[in-house]
Amino acid sequence: MQRQSYPPEILQYIPFFYVIWSDDLITASEINVVKYAINSDNSLNAAHRELLLSWSKPENPPENSLLKEWKQTISSSRVKLVESDTYPLTSFSQNLVCLYHEACPFNDQLKHIETNLGIQPNHYGHLFEVDIQRSSESKYYSASELDGILKGEHAELVDGFRSVTKDAIFEWNIHRNKSEFRDIVLEQVKFLADKGYGTTAYPEAVGGQNDMEGYAHIFENLMYVDGSLTIKFGVQFGLFGGSIEKLGTKRHHEKYLRDIGSAELLGCFAMTETGHGSNVRGIKTTATYDRASDNLIIHTPGKNDNKEYIGNGLHGTMATVFAQLIVNGKNEGVHAILVRLRDEQQQLMEGVKIEDCGYKLGLNGVDNVKIWFDQVSVPRENLLNKHGEITTEGQYRSKIENPNKRFFTMLGTLVGGRICVARAGLGGAKFALAVAVNHALRRRQFNDSVKVQEDLLMDYPTHQLRLTPLVASAYVYHITLDKMMASYCDDARPDKRVIETKVAGLKAIITWYANDCIQECREACGGKGYLLENRIADLKGDVDIFTTFEGDNTVLSLLAAKGVLSDFRSEFNSAGFTAVLKILGIQISDTLTTIDPRYSNKVDADHLYNPKFHKHAFNYRTQRLTYTLAMRIRDYIKKGMPPYQAFLKVQTHLLALGKAFSKELAYNAFADFVNEMPEGKNRGLFEKLGALYALHEIRRDAEWYLEQGYLGGTKSKAIRQRVERLCTELRPHIGVLVSGFGIPAHLMTAPIASEDWKIDFRLNVP
Amino acid sequence: MQRQSYPPEILQYIPFFYVIWSDDLITASEINVVKYAINSDNSLNAAHRELLLSWSKPENPPENSLLKEWKQTISSSRVKLVESDTYPLTSFSQNLVCLYHEACPFNDQLKHIETNLGIQPNHYGHLFEVDIQRSSESKYYSASELDGILKGEHAELVDGFRSVTKDAIFEWNIHRNKSEFRDIVLEQVKFLADKGYGTTAYPEAVGGQNDMEGYAHIFENLMYVDGSLTIKFGVQFGLFGGSIEKLGTKRHHEKYLRDIGSAELLGCFAMTETGHGSNVRGIKTTATYDRASDNLIIHTPGKNDNKEYIGNGLHGTMATVFAQLIVNGKNEGVHAILVRLRDEQQQLMEGVKIEDCGYKLGLNGVDNVKIWFDQVSVPRENLLNKHGEITTEGQYRSKIENPNKRFFTMLGTLVGGRICVARAGLGGAKFALAVAVNHALRRRQFNDSVKVQEDLLMDYPTHQLRLTPLVASAYVYHITLDKMMASYCDDARPDKRVIETKVAGLKAIITWYANDCIQECREACGGKGYLLENRIADLKGDVDIFTTFEGDNTVLSLLAAKGVLSDFRSEFNSAGFTAVLKILGIQISDTLTTIDPRYSNKVDADHLYNPKFHKHAFNYRTQRLTYTLAMRIRDYIKKGMPPYQAFLKVQTHLLALGKAFSKELAYNAFADFVNEMPEGKNRGLFEKLGALYALHEIRRDAEWYLEQGYLGGTKSKAIRQRVERLCTELRPHIGVLVSGFGIPAHLMTAPIASEDWKIDFRLNVP
Repeated sequence: MQRQSYPPEILQYIPFFYVIWSDDLITASEINVVKYAINSDNSLNAAHRELLLSWSKPENPPENSLLKEWKQTISSSRVKLVESDTYPLTSFSQNLVCLYHEACPFNDQLKHIETNLGIQPNHYGHLFEVDIQRSSESKYYSASELDGILKGEHAELVDGFRSVTKDAIFEWNIHRNKSEFRDIVLEQVKFLADKGYGTTAYPEAVGGQNDMEGYAHIFENLMYVDGSLTIKFGVQFGLFGGSIEKLGTKRHHEKYLRDIGSAELLGCFAMTETGHGSNVRGIKTTATYDRASDNLIIHTPGKNDNKEYIGNGLHGTMATVFAQLIVNGKNEGVHAILVRLRDEQQQLMEGVKIEDCGYKLGLNGVDNVKIWFDQVSVPRENLLNKHGEITTEGQYRSKIENPNKRFFTMLGTLVGGRICVARAGLGGAKFALAVAVNHALRRRQFNDSVKVQEDLLMDYPTHQLRLTPLVASAYVYHITLDKMMASYCDDARPDKRVIETKVAGLKAIITWYANDCIQECREACGGKGYLLENRIADLKGDVDIFTTFEGDNTVLSLLAAKGVLSDFRSEFNSAGFTAVLKILGIQISDTLTTIDPRYSNKVDADHLYNPKFHKHAFNYRTQRLTYTLAMRIRDYIKKGMPPYQAFLKVQTHLLALGKAFSKELAYNAFADFVNEMPEGKNRGLFEKLGALYALHEIRRDAEWYLEQGYLGGTKSKAIRQRVERLCTELRPHIGVLVSGFGIPAHLMTAPIASEDWKIDFRLNVP
Repeated sequence: MQRQSYPPEILQYIPFFYVIWSDDLITASEINVVKYAINSDNSLNAAHRELLLSWSKPENPPENSLLKEWKQTISSSRVKLVESDTYPLTSFSQNLVCLYHEACPFNDQLKHIETNLGIQPNHYGHLFEVDIQRSSESKYYSASELDGILKGEHAELVDGFRSVTKDAIFEWNIHRNKSEFRDIVLEQVKFLADKGYGTTAYPEAVGGQNDMEGYAHIFENLMYVDGSLTIKFGVQFGLFGGSIEKLGTKRHHEKYLRDIGSAELLGCFAMTETGHGSNVRGIKTTATYDRASDNLIIHTPGKNDNKEYIGNGLHGTMATVFAQLIVNGKNEGVHAILVRLRDEQQQLMEGVKIEDCGYKLGLNGVDNVKIWFDQVSVPRENLLNKHGEITTEGQYRSKIENPNKRFFTMLGTLVGGRICVARAGLGGAKFALAVAVNHALRRRQFNDSVKVQEDLLMDYPTHQLRLTPLVASAYVYHITLDKMMASYCDDARPDKRVIETKVAGLKAIITWYANDCIQECREACGGKGYLLENRIADLKGDVDIFTTFEGDNTVLSLLAAKGVLSDFRSEFNSAGFTAVLKILGIQISDTLTTIDPRYSNKVDADHLYNPKFHKHAFNYRTQRLTYTLAMRIRDYIKKGMPPYQAFLKVQTHLLALGKAFSKELAYNAFADFVNEMPEGKNRGLFEKLGALYALHEIRRDAEWYLEQGYLGGTKSKAIRQRVERLCTELRPHIGVLVSGFGIPAHLMTAPIASEDWKIDFRLNVP
């Protein structure tokens, strides 16, 4: 280290003069502040004072050579600037002097200059070639390790995919014109098909990778690029291709799946009608078998019976059309039929009418349309005939005799798409959290007017409380959805109905969570969050509809609840229901014992952080809601109320059960995962995330737990305090936690999140 | 009434054949259903049967002349079609026969046709020239009476304004290009200025109407036209003009207000900076008085110190710029100075740099910009000098010595704008509710598969619970904001600080409410709500930022809480605070008595609907939160924690208090209003709305009331049941309730709300 030539009295002023003159920080009227301080500084002798005042003349600023000498003095010292100091620059000066001199007191006159000129680290940080020590950041955990845990066995696929998104075609931009936007998104979809991602989930026999779990990861990562791309990709490969894969048979697979995977053949999934969205069983489009021509005649009967909101509808040349199949005058229920929409010159086929749905709140890069069919003929072979077919003799045949069961079996095979929607919502939430947290780790506002530096948003307890539980939930839902997809893909588990019920509930709570989360992030970023460039605004518009499509969340929650109630039977009738009630009544009255007051007021940390308590609380709620619900319905039915009416009467109760069941499911999946993690710091972190999720969710239903006597007032308050405490404990790690989402640096374009990102958290794609 | 010539056996089939053949409802394969029914109908003789079968040949459909005869038969009968009947068309046929014949049994074969063909009223309603009797709608209340109550003494102004919005210039359209959108909005603002609305709030001395309360009504009604128009209007006349009116003196008023009111002079309100949004006291822009030139030099010192988000910034020629006023080297704190941005040729003035903020989530018709000043000179007279001025001798002078108090006095005069933002949020919420409720009164989905008609969304309990409390809240907040503006305008109440605290809290809860409400409405409309044409999407984007601008909601809630705590003093220091604690401690411990268990478990309807209970509950929460908060802070301070840190520690508690205080305030204002209403049915309705608001809000905080022992479990459950019960009771009136918002028919362009709107609820502009 080079010996300093300035005496300490002068040296202490060097950082100040360097900052003042390097950045034209000072205006003529403000120099008085500096002069006043120098004149009041008793540590200076006349000669020092004269020298310092000679550097305080706006009309005669120091030479550049002198500035360079100062800069060298500062840089070579290797003193660190500690941003969290109350007076960072004064402390820096003091530390500089301490390097070379025994006596190095804190100088109040320097503090006076720092305070009165409001010189802040963000104004001069870039001038110092020294490390800026950021406040309250820990490197204890590693973002790439967390990312590795989340990627699991799909790491190679995910990393490869993230690399591919570096291509210029995925560069984020503001798109206001839907037609231009859609063209770009179409090109992106084709690009991904060229790279082989279109066939990720298809069978190996048709050139696919048979990797539905990997597909779900890709799908979530697509949200980091753009919402419209995600949905268009999903419509083409997941819904259109997926419907052929799941509902068609070998002849369809061989004929179409390769072309669909390579995006040579673009198509739609035409289920929803204007008059029938949630109640798809009631769709009106007909597919009438005409024996003479051996064709199916697709027809839109009434004015609200057109297909609506059909994605890929301006680019697609074919559609999987859901219609009431009528064979020999008998309605065999809803079936899927491949219908050509456009010929090779992209001209509409005869009898097909298509209209653009127009501008939407979001997803304007997706071409949603309305479709009308006027007696459109397609060959009998176009019926996707896995679950029901028309024989060459013109007879309908199905292995599943009950038409309702047949319909639900068909729907059940499409559950994978619902998991993917939840994942996409989760991806949007993660992106918004990464923006909001990184903004909060940079943005400052307010101080106690003794500090020079204002406080980081992330250091405010309200800010911690609004963002940290959302981060924890993202981890929980990630693991849950992974496990759910694994179950769905596990052929050893044949009962898809159980999974369908679970997925219905999870899709609802996770897409609701995603919307709440994105809104919270928008507000947490203030006005900056409102600008499109910061990405949250688009996410808000795009993710919004996730609560509606692939099943309206309220309807899905009710479905999940009915699944719980009926022990996963699809239909209630008074006979079947009574039987179910009996089972439930017995099971539940056995397990629901009175809560011990010592338990309902147990507030020690060990208990509150214990997964056993969390599991018990979630399970108690589900069981108790089920039992009371069953009792209410039974009472109504006993009074002679038709079951349909009885269910309407308890609809809000059902909704509560649907949500409770899904949260229990999510927590259990996560807790089981954590249980199998190797011992170590990451497991400890995941345990903490699980505890925060559980306690936060229990708090949200605290009024119910209190009503039941499950929680006493003291315990309920203790849980609230623990939630806040956990948020504070996680504060130093929150930057790493959002980096753990693995959003590639090249996709994180939000200016408010990317400034300094490289230094601290930016995760580079391998 | 004309005697019918068909025998009853034939007559009963006429409506069916009319529907079937008029609308090409039937396909070849479905005619079998009709034939089967005729053949199975034992009430027919051979001749009847032959005649009916002769009308059942797709290859030979009935002549048009016959169809006309049938239509005449139906129309002349004047039988009503009751949509809510289980089998509407069968019942209609039965009623038709009953008109002419003694014997007119319900015919199961007709029911068979109706069910199997799925013939629904929405398919044939347009064919019948008869009244369609809608289900569960009551005409007991009158929308225009409700609207009259809400308009109060501003009816003439509001009605006149609504008429003016009929002009083609206000026609709603989708605007994707911000530049075109902004041009249109500018023309709309000028048009309103021409009609005299720009000067509504200005003093009569400068040609204004001195009607700030009326201005707030106009402002809310503007939201029915467009959010961007509302905000641009507010920036020009409220913020820019208002700042001159409130912070300037006579010379400024005379020189500028007429031109501003007529939109000859367009301007901005330049307060927020990139680095300082919430903490405006810390803004960095300087206005340095230069004695030599007698000018103020406006300057942007550092890289984050530019003005940001300044509305009207591309069209404005002048701005009220907030800056640190430095006179003779001393910083006198933040002051407002008029600065010319552009010359008469709309060229930027020297030293002024302006950049478009770019696309936003919403409000893209507002031209928000960033502004940098590089040593821009303006005459000393441009200082808005009501609260502080520079004398001709170049000395600073103010009647308010404390610079903080001076600053808050200046801000306090701008509180009217904050009320207006809350009103605009409320207007957005009302519009979204009108769309969602009217949609829910038309849209059907699902049935119990015995009914022909599916159920109206509005008849689902979950739907009632999601929308009805939001409608009640809109009424409560409307009255509250009206009263708050009246207090603000009442010169007999000089202590504006008290009102400022109240407005801060109300603005936060009402704009949060508005966002939640619009989101709920979006989801309640399903995919249709996602289309821009249905208006909710735009409202969602526009109203979103209301939670941030004119004060971030979290910051405002904390401000409100601090106001409560400090007995409305602005600054805390340990001495002053201790005194406050003393007062609070004494006051509160006197009023907070232990809750009698008989009270905490009182569940009779009279008690739960009694405003005394509601007021007590709201007040208990505010008082108790204040007391416990004060105790916590005192303990921290006793332990030697600096007050700033102590306040950080209790920040989430403060936030809860801020919200609780504001809800109490809102409820009390509404309850007092209802108390002064004349006896009668409308008062009864308003009482019900108040009860629903109160019980719903108490439920939302039920976990806290339970923890405190204020509510017992039984009472808490009873409140939940009462909320659901009230929603059901209000079900027949919900259409009228949203019509009572007075949204003019010509502005309600959402297709999903406007279908049949005229028949039932549409309110015509007088």
